[in-house]
Amino acid sequence: MSNTFGTLFRIIDFGESHGSAVGGIIDGCPAGLELDLDFVNSELQRRAPSSDEFSTARHEPDSVKFLSGISNGRTLGTPIAFIIMNRDVKDDANANILKPSHASFVYMEKYGHEDNYGCGRASARQTVCRVVAGAIAKLLLQQYDVAIESYLATPPPPCPPDDTVGAKISVRVTGLPTGIGEPVYDKLDARLAYAMLSINAAKGFEIGKGFAAADMLGSEYNDRQTSGYRFLSNNDGGVQAGISNGQEVCFTVAFKPIPTLKQEQQTIDFEGNPAIYKGSDRNDRCVYPRVLPVVEAMTALVLADLLLQQNAKQLCKN
Amino acid sequence: MSNTFGTLFRIIDFGESHGSAVGGIIDGCPAGLELDLDFVNSELQRRAPSSDEFSTARHEPDSVKFLSGISNGRTLGTPIAFIIMNRDVKDDANANILKPSHASFVYMEKYGHEDNYGCGRASARQTVCRVVAGAIAKLLLQQYDVAIESYLATPPPPCPPDDTVGAKISVRVTGLPTGIGEPVYDKLDARLAYAMLSINAAKGFEIGKGFAAADMLGSEYNDRQTSGYRFLSNNDGGVQAGISNGQEVCFTVAFKPIPTLKQEQQTIDFEGNPAIYKGSDRNDRCVYPRVLPVVEAMTALVLADLLLQQNAKQLCKN
Amino acid sequence: MSNTFGTLFRIIDFGESHGSAVGGIIDGCPAGLELDLDFVNSELQRRAPSSDEFSTARHEPDSVKFLSGISNGRTLGTPIAFIIMNRDVKDDANANILKPSHASFVYMEKYGHEDNYGCGRASARQTVCRVVAGAIAKLLLQQYDVAIESYLATPPPPCPPDDTVGAKISVRVTGLPTGIGEPVYDKLDARLAYAMLSINAAKGFEIGKGFAAADMLGSEYNDRQTSGYRFLSNNDGGVQAGISNGQEVCFTVAFKPIPTLKQEQQTIDFEGNPAIYKGSDRNDRCVYPRVLPVVEAMTALVLADLLLQQNAKQLCKN
Amino acid sequence: MSNTFGTLFRIIDFGESHGSAVGGIIDGCPAGLELDLDFVNSELQRRAPSSDEFSTARHEPDSVKFLSGISNGRTLGTPIAFIIMNRDVKDDANANILKPSHASFVYMEKYGHEDNYGCGRASARQTVCRVVAGAIAKLLLQQYDVAIESYLATPPPPCPPDDTVGAKISVRVTGLPTGIGEPVYDKLDARLAYAMLSINAAKGFEIGKGFAAADMLGSEYNDRQTSGYRFLSNNDGGVQAGISNGQEVCFTVAFKPIPTLKQEQQTIDFEGNPAIYKGSDRNDRCVYPRVLPVVEAMTALVLADLLLQQNAKQLCKN
Repeated sequence: MSNTFGTLFRIIDFGESHGSAVGGIIDGCPAGLELDLDFVNSELQRRAPSSDEFSTARHEPDSVKFLSGISNGRTLGTPIAFIIMNRDVKDDANANILKPSHASFVYMEKYGHEDNYGCGRASARQTVCRVVAGAIAKLLLQQYDVAIESYLATPPPPCPPDDTVGAKISVRVTGLPTGIGEPVYDKLDARLAYAMLSINAAKGFEIGKGFAAADMLGSEYNDRQTSGYRFLSNNDGGVQAGISNGQEVCFTVAFKPIPTLKQEQQTIDFEGNPAIYKGSDRNDRCVYPRVLPVVEAMTALVLADLLLQQNAKQLCKN
Repeated sequence: MSNTFGTLFRIIDFGESHGSAVGGIIDGCPAGLELDLDFVNSELQRRAPSSDEFSTARHEPDSVKFLSGISNGRTLGTPIAFIIMNRDVKDDANANILKPSHASFVYMEKYGHEDNYGCGRASARQTVCRVVAGAIAKLLLQQYDVAIESYLATPPPPCPPDDTVGAKISVRVTGLPTGIGEPVYDKLDARLAYAMLSINAAKGFEIGKGFAAADMLGSEYNDRQTSGYRFLSNNDGGVQAGISNGQEVCFTVAFKPIPTLKQEQQTIDFEGNPAIYKGSDRNDRCVYPRVLPVVEAMTALVLADLLLQQNAKQLCKN
Repeated sequence: MSNTFGTLFRIIDFGESHGSAVGGIIDGCPAGLELDLDFVNSELQRRAPSSDEFSTARHEPDSVKFLSGISNGRTLGTPIAFIIMNRDVKDDANANILKPSHASFVYMEKYGHEDNYGCGRASARQTVCRVVAGAIAKLLLQQYDVAIESYLATPPPPCPPDDTVGAKISVRVTGLPTGIGEPVYDKLDARLAYAMLSINAAKGFEIGKGFAAADMLGSEYNDRQTSGYRFLSNNDGGVQAGISNGQEVCFTVAFKPIPTLKQEQQTIDFEGNPAIYKGSDRNDRCVYPRVLPVVEAMTALVLADLLLQQNAKQLCKN
Repeated sequence: MSNTFGTLFRIIDFGESHGSAVGGIIDGCPAGLELDLDFVNSELQRRAPSSDEFSTARHEPDSVKFLSGISNGRTLGTPIAFIIMNRDVKDDANANILKPSHASFVYMEKYGHEDNYGCGRASARQTVCRVVAGAIAKLLLQQYDVAIESYLATPPPPCPPDDTVGAKISVRVTGLPTGIGEPVYDKLDARLAYAMLSINAAKGFEIGKGFAAADMLGSEYNDRQTSGYRFLSNNDGGVQAGISNGQEVCFTVAFKPIPTLKQEQQTIDFEGNPAIYKGSDRNDRCVYPRVLPVVEAMTALVLADLLLQQNAKQLCKN
């Protein structure tokens, strides 16, 4: 189900970076949710390039247009379609060159594409769709008093101006009720890992103590409980046996450096001949800070979906 | 789809550790595959307790019985059902006590269970089903010349005899063709992360350089290609833009210490009163080495599923 | 998803008629449902051969064994596995002969099977799994005050003793709340048609006036409403725009004659040579009455699934 | 999965009749398919109102715009998004009146909508999305030499000019290979019944002899085979045990009269008060002929999906 994410609250999206538009359809959002367009736009603004040291100097945020599923400012319960026009789509001078550590080669192998226009779907441009869908998931989660925030886990290392650098992003979820997440395969943390690794350039995921847990003893690690079922620690990061335990859900995602550099890189072209690949001023130098709303969006999609799944399990009429 | 994993090649399983049996159904395996029962049993043997320093001293491996989907030693293309009887199921002296960092509390909250019998599904006992399904996925992958191996990534730290310790397990996949994995949400690495975090006690996943990638520069990280489309490095761990690039697929999974200790732990019971939880000699002290076939099994399930998905994309009759 | 039916409340099953057992896994049943085993057995009894004019003279009903998902007589919320042993499995004297209007030829073509043992999955034996799953769905529906009954729509035509005959079965559902069924593709009637045509030998489905509606004028057909939103007729059979309207849901299923006759039929064998196929005294002569609990079971599975889907659509915490 | 149809080749669509646009996303179409836009437009032309006796007098066909998934006239293997603008959207004078035998009441009950604007998704307007997706499925099926045609099964009865009438539509599929369709629940005929009943106003489905089979004897019904595996009859309509047998696939769908009449109908409004509902000249008087491309489209979606599923089942590398 490659271009769809989620079971009951789900997104499917479309669009190549060199095409006319990107967009998607959100299906499964309950009827009656007030659709705060200012909030959706503020999320898109967070993803827009800014004047910080790591982002490109493009100007306005994307403008989203909703085509269905909303009437009088509220959701109808029907699919919510949205579209965002692509701007400034120019011919790509590097269209025939394999971008190092990028999608060029694998799309050629998978689909038989003969240039980089074929892999425009793999562009970070796609993440704007995640942000729109995630904003609506966040609005739904607000009705359940769930909040999500993300931040840089550690300061990035120094980075020359013509190079790029990776980043670690942490997420904290507050207000999530106990009992969210499905046992065995659709564990809350398994769904989060799935969602996070689906983001471009993500290479790692850990929850709670994560990789450090591998070096700990059980006696120091275990989150014990005391009166009022209160927890004495949160090494598990709010998820035990795949199900939320009422504590903050805390996890971290590792991103590799953005593969497109402003310096020249020796590579080959689609036909296998030696070539030079060189990015432009349009390229970011780190996924941070623009990835923050994307990470939060994917978190929101996971939580909204699992909350609705939990709602379903009613033994009788209310 | 909580108890199912996979789209075209998929497993659904059942069983509580205190019940009479565990088992499952493998659906979507092509017809005509030779079912090497010795291989299935050898995988179960790898999961069985042994005399190594970290495992309990139970004796024989589990014995699996296949109920359908096989005739004359070959798969029929119909569902392959299997069952494994539980042995030595005794009353649990700790049935009313919340196991620290375990499933007791969250199952109580999610399902309304009033003792640990209700969370027998969360036991590591369930992983025997993964191993059986994974063994069949491995047999299918052998037809495609794909091999999977796993090993301890780093030596575990010293651990007192009444305590437990975590572990990091690495996996290496060889022979995987290029083009496996679906773009955007069902990326190969996203599916692997999903599969790995669904294993009991898993708390982290990284592919290729993983978390270390976050501290690297693009110029040192990028996997560039040269003549013959040959790669000069494999920092991406064999997956780019979510799709296999023909290199070895390499990833690592972090596991927390097993939560059940032979030493006493202060906790509470299901009614919230202070209590002591103390494990028995039956409990392992580290997920290693018994988790190795489980990790490989989940890897095999992901790969078999994505290989069949790739097969489907034919434009015309062969 | 060939061997699975349902999204939130779902069944997957296994087993060939010539194998050792059939069975299945019911996933998604809410926790806490009292599992009335007498009721499950009474449903199996209804499917068992009886002394009526159309059934074979086999004796006892099948005996189902539950392996998981139940504790102290109530569902745990985990997968409910069940198994039913096959009895009297003998070598099939007709194993190499293509059964007319049956599965022999298409399974040979689809899976490469070389005899009728390969198509044991297509046997009506499989429907015993539907009855078990349907019984549990019915128990859940009882909590919602929904009841299902089925009956012969019209008397069957006269049938010589060595021949077989078709049947039309009607179903009436009472107590179904309004608002059940999903718009567009997962309409309540579309799911019912899907479920009914999945039953062996089913060749037609109609809801409300069904095929007769094609010859009616809108002015005589339309179900108009009056004060209290009360309907003045029920030509639509309780479903409008794919969603239940609170009236009785009424539909009819057409079954072809059972293809296995006690008289000789000229056919060919798997290698294409002329052959004679002749059934035995073990074969029923009409799907009625044994198909009644099967039809009801599939109805129950559709309704339970759509009820849980409707439960999910909550805008905020209860 | 209410607004999605299909597993590997699938459509999800959006749009209310009173909104700005309808459209959808086709996911799972293999890369490299030539997208014949003239063919897509000719299918839309068939759905457009014409001057025949049963259709409204609107003018031009809808114009579809593709937004993604296509480059240089061929599919990329990525999602194919399309949009069709709505024209002439006026305020609905009957917005507060319950349309008899229509979606008004059930959408009010399901979603809490308070007028007919809320049920614009249930309009036949939605079927334009099916036709676009179906056209692409047909183009894929052409590569497999599969053809679909539909026609009026029987002449419609006489119908006064201010009334409406039902219709029976038959479909004939040629060139479908043997072995298509999945056993048990995803039988070819079960998927077709599901697809057909999902079309607005459909009330019945039958395949082969269909309802007439219920009155036949096995000895006259059975499709026996002779040398060359050739069939001597086709009462089963090309599908046995849920799988195509290489003969023509033949089925019929019954549609009720269109519920909106030009004559006054006594009904109630959303608040339960007596009211008169009266349609306009814009409304068709029979689903025929405009439903033909819709019926064919849904057939094509089922077949394309099951063909790709069959492709997946490969035991080893090609």
